[in-house]
Amino acid sequence: MENFEITSGPLPGSEKIYVTGSRSDIRVPMRKIKLSPTVDLDGSKIENEDVVVYDTSGPYTDTNYTVDLQKGLPKLRENWIEERQDTVKLEGLSSEYGRMRQEDKSLDSLRFEHVNTHPRIAREGAQVSQLYYARQGIITPEMEYIAIRENQLADRIREKYKKEKGESFGAHIPDYITPEFVRQEVAAGRAIIPANINHPECEPMIIGRNFLVKINANIGNSPVTSSIAEEVEKAVWAFRWGADTIMDLSTGKNIHETREWIIRNSPVPVGTVPLYQTLEKVGGNVEKLNWEIFRDTLIEQAEQGVDYFTIHAGLRWKHVPLTLKRLTGIVSRGGSIMAHWCTTHKQESFIYEHFEEICQILAKYDVGISLGDGLRPGCIADANDTAQIEELKTLGELCQTAWKYNVQAIIEGPGHVPMQKIKENMDLQLKYCREAPFYTLGPLVTDIAPGYDHITSAIGGAMIGWFGTAMLCYVTQKEHLGLPNRDDVKEGVITFKLAAHAADLAKGHPAAYFRDYAMSKARFEFRWKDQFHLALDSEKAIKFHDETLPDEGHKEAHFCSMCGEHFCSMRASKKLREKISQENK
Amino acid sequence: MENFEITSGPLPGSEKIYVTGSRSDIRVPMRKIKLSPTVDLDGSKIENEDVVVYDTSGPYTDTNYTVDLQKGLPKLRENWIEERQDTVKLEGLSSEYGRMRQEDKSLDSLRFEHVNTHPRIAREGAQVSQLYYARQGIITPEMEYIAIRENQLADRIREKYKKEKGESFGAHIPDYITPEFVRQEVAAGRAIIPANINHPECEPMIIGRNFLVKINANIGNSPVTSSIAEEVEKAVWAFRWGADTIMDLSTGKNIHETREWIIRNSPVPVGTVPLYQTLEKVGGNVEKLNWEIFRDTLIEQAEQGVDYFTIHAGLRWKHVPLTLKRLTGIVSRGGSIMAHWCTTHKQESFIYEHFEEICQILAKYDVGISLGDGLRPGCIADANDTAQIEELKTLGELCQTAWKYNVQAIIEGPGHVPMQKIKENMDLQLKYCREAPFYTLGPLVTDIAPGYDHITSAIGGAMIGWFGTAMLCYVTQKEHLGLPNRDDVKEGVITFKLAAHAADLAKGHPAAYFRDYAMSKARFEFRWKDQFHLALDSEKAIKFHDETLPDEGHKEAHFCSMCGEHFCSMRASKKLREKISQENK
Repeated sequence: MENFEITSGPLPGSEKIYVTGSRSDIRVPMRKIKLSPTVDLDGSKIENEDVVVYDTSGPYTDTNYTVDLQKGLPKLRENWIEERQDTVKLEGLSSEYGRMRQEDKSLDSLRFEHVNTHPRIAREGAQVSQLYYARQGIITPEMEYIAIRENQLADRIREKYKKEKGESFGAHIPDYITPEFVRQEVAAGRAIIPANINHPECEPMIIGRNFLVKINANIGNSPVTSSIAEEVEKAVWAFRWGADTIMDLSTGKNIHETREWIIRNSPVPVGTVPLYQTLEKVGGNVEKLNWEIFRDTLIEQAEQGVDYFTIHAGLRWKHVPLTLKRLTGIVSRGGSIMAHWCTTHKQESFIYEHFEEICQILAKYDVGISLGDGLRPGCIADANDTAQIEELKTLGELCQTAWKYNVQAIIEGPGHVPMQKIKENMDLQLKYCREAPFYTLGPLVTDIAPGYDHITSAIGGAMIGWFGTAMLCYVTQKEHLGLPNRDDVKEGVITFKLAAHAADLAKGHPAAYFRDYAMSKARFEFRWKDQFHLALDSEKAIKFHDETLPDEGHKEAHFCSMCGEHFCSMRASKKLREKISQENK
Repeated sequence: MENFEITSGPLPGSEKIYVTGSRSDIRVPMRKIKLSPTVDLDGSKIENEDVVVYDTSGPYTDTNYTVDLQKGLPKLRENWIEERQDTVKLEGLSSEYGRMRQEDKSLDSLRFEHVNTHPRIAREGAQVSQLYYARQGIITPEMEYIAIRENQLADRIREKYKKEKGESFGAHIPDYITPEFVRQEVAAGRAIIPANINHPECEPMIIGRNFLVKINANIGNSPVTSSIAEEVEKAVWAFRWGADTIMDLSTGKNIHETREWIIRNSPVPVGTVPLYQTLEKVGGNVEKLNWEIFRDTLIEQAEQGVDYFTIHAGLRWKHVPLTLKRLTGIVSRGGSIMAHWCTTHKQESFIYEHFEEICQILAKYDVGISLGDGLRPGCIADANDTAQIEELKTLGELCQTAWKYNVQAIIEGPGHVPMQKIKENMDLQLKYCREAPFYTLGPLVTDIAPGYDHITSAIGGAMIGWFGTAMLCYVTQKEHLGLPNRDDVKEGVITFKLAAHAADLAKGHPAAYFRDYAMSKARFEFRWKDQFHLALDSEKAIKFHDETLPDEGHKEAHFCSMCGEHFCSMRASKKLREKISQENK
């Protein structure tokens, strides 16, 4: 295997801490941003409360951890899964394709060393999904882990900062998230915990509108092939900067082996679109797609540990004619594949037809389902049209079916939507899908800014996140133009982190305000390093600042090059306050 | 004078055209984006309507124009101003400081060659503002010019694309903008035409919520001094990419001379904050500020041709205590200066006290007033607080005073505001300021993303633009960190153009939809060059595309590197459509 160069080590000014739950093996990693004291008028120092945020970066940012990609990450959930005694280890892989790849000696050089050939599956008759447990009233260690994580230790400082009133449009975010609250939300289908029993390395996280808004980053090679090394690094890079989940959308060679490397080294849930690999298996010929190969792919990927699948089950044959008058037709890859299939075979989508069987398979591994919106609008002119809304209704029905089989489900959403139509989209989703979590791509609020579509989509993303979307899929600046590189991925992740955070603030999430408060306090007090460390992208903040004022001494300066010393309003405002304070003594 | 390197020539794929009005000297420049034909299934070609957008770039993008900065731009309004016979040319400059600079031989090398030493002023007893004319029922050539510009020739295609319904929150945007409509809006104070009689080079534009949303770019040197050459190029660069107005916020040396160069070469209105220069004149000592020096500065700049002044008249002595409990105090430079002055002298702001006299001065030159929000919130925690709202009420009162003197007025707004408080801000502004145009800085929807504040502010900007803000002041990615360079200025301008355009779409502006429609049509038909040319930033779109597919042949390809040929949904969707079309034959 080629030598990996994986980014590791803590972010600037941050320390990785672990918060322990009710048992010693519930250790929730957090990022503690250590702040310097405020120097008061009389020179005395007042300590500033450190800011603690949840941490998606995995063990890579733990200075005590030695990265070994060949070995994979520690299996923090293994014991929890074992304890439940509802799973068995298979003798071998159940999928034909999985076995074929396993037996192919020519792939040995590419293969992850400790590949698990005995995947777990639900014991005969047992139910193993977090949704099932939640419905039974069981609080799993995963749920407790999530409760600790979502609180971000904000209870320490909640009393001080809870005055901010949000507008949550019907979301109910408690002041303090308890494990029981997590259970209730999962049981109601309002939130999901993507956690395949074959991905024990995964640090539990939750997607639901009564929790912090999450973001997903797409990675994966395309025909302009990238190497496995690049892909794993792209994943590590994406969650280092804050991706809550990653989707591996690879469509090139050796995607089975690449996926194994990614999952074994990913602390965040991994999603895929199994249809892409299925199409590869039939040589790219859509007409040759069939249920058997698709089914085998689902099993193959479920046994590797994929945490959620995007499945375009909602695009039905009857929907295809609704797209003919559209300006940009069908822009979802999965959607266009299935529309082609239905039209060619003149029959109902095999995915729709076999949906119950799909749910039965997914339930055995606790793979979540992300109901793909094959008919999402691809331009402003097609937004909220009949095709989209009819498919959304179908997605709502399929969601009920998934729940029947204890499969955790989320619903995918648009796309391109002008601002005045975003709320309608959200409201219809809540209505037709009975509050199942919404997972949107943007939406982009205009079509005319290629090169800036991370921004056009962050505008729509922040808004729809505020209105109730649980997870935002990032869009990079390369959207519509090419494949994102490493810098584009980071730019996309940070842009969506800020959009998600803006949504949390607007909803009034109790854990969200504190970071803004700390940042602005540091700003007013010219604690430059604290500002850099509190920034979503410390590295860029430092770089920009140092372009004009590189001296170390300027990190203490009571101004920056934006306005200069003379015209710094913060400085003047502070002086004014000191003046008034002196006079009143 | 050093040799200038000024960017000129048309944008990619664009041609500058002129639309003539009711008289031959009303020639409105537009940017025509020429599109290639659609190739139909049978190989026949169908022409695509060219897209015409208004053009802020000035003669610099006209291939028939030879740039000569020493001479300045053609004075397109000179004849219109002359015709009205309500102005006289002064014997010499009225401001003491202006005369002093004029007489200083040591400045000769810096000086604009054809500096006007005989500025215009209203004839004794005459009123010369566009607001005055509008109230008299007079449609000026400026108003007709604006009507043509705002329509963007969209009447050619309006019938086809007007189906989109916007939500305009009480804005009334007609299907077709007539000169009479422009007059009515100006007369009502709902819109302003910044057009100093001493800036005849200015191409008339309008700021009001019943028109296209505008953007402003701030330029200007700071103590990290840049040269005059750099400043003029920064201005040309900013309006090349779409800045509707520029504000010269220089605080360094020779700002009088720099300003002359900028105004003589600017086709867009130029705004300033006269207080900054006034402070320079008293050596940066706030306590030495006084009405006489401020007054002289107003006259100095009015006679140079500044089109609008930001004046922080609303910050009153009594407001200062309201800011003491704020997290970040006063973050407006002008605000912090005046708060300091009031507190030191223990008396009411001299700007507030002399406001009627200020209006009398401005009226003589038709300088617009932008009522500065000295108490805008500088962080999420301070948003919509009492300090801000109390100042806003004062701004509303001052606006009435300005109108009494026929001075055109706009109101400045925040700042940092979480999403759920943006609409309240807009609604209060409309209420207290009786629909005078709102001009906001962002707002930034979170504090924690320094390095990305063009995005945090574009989110708030798009929203408040939709809710009714007439002009958005751009924020660059260097905000809070340093002085923007050339690339930052462009990035900021494009980001705010897309936010303003998203707002126009959401409001349902009839001229806005066509460009998105044309872009998406080009996208679906793989007319790559048309996509690039329709993009707000053609250069970046081409660069990003060519990073992975540089060959000229790929500009005709039915895919890009994002998904590759095999997985291109647009391609698949087109094929599907062709298939169905064939079958139905």
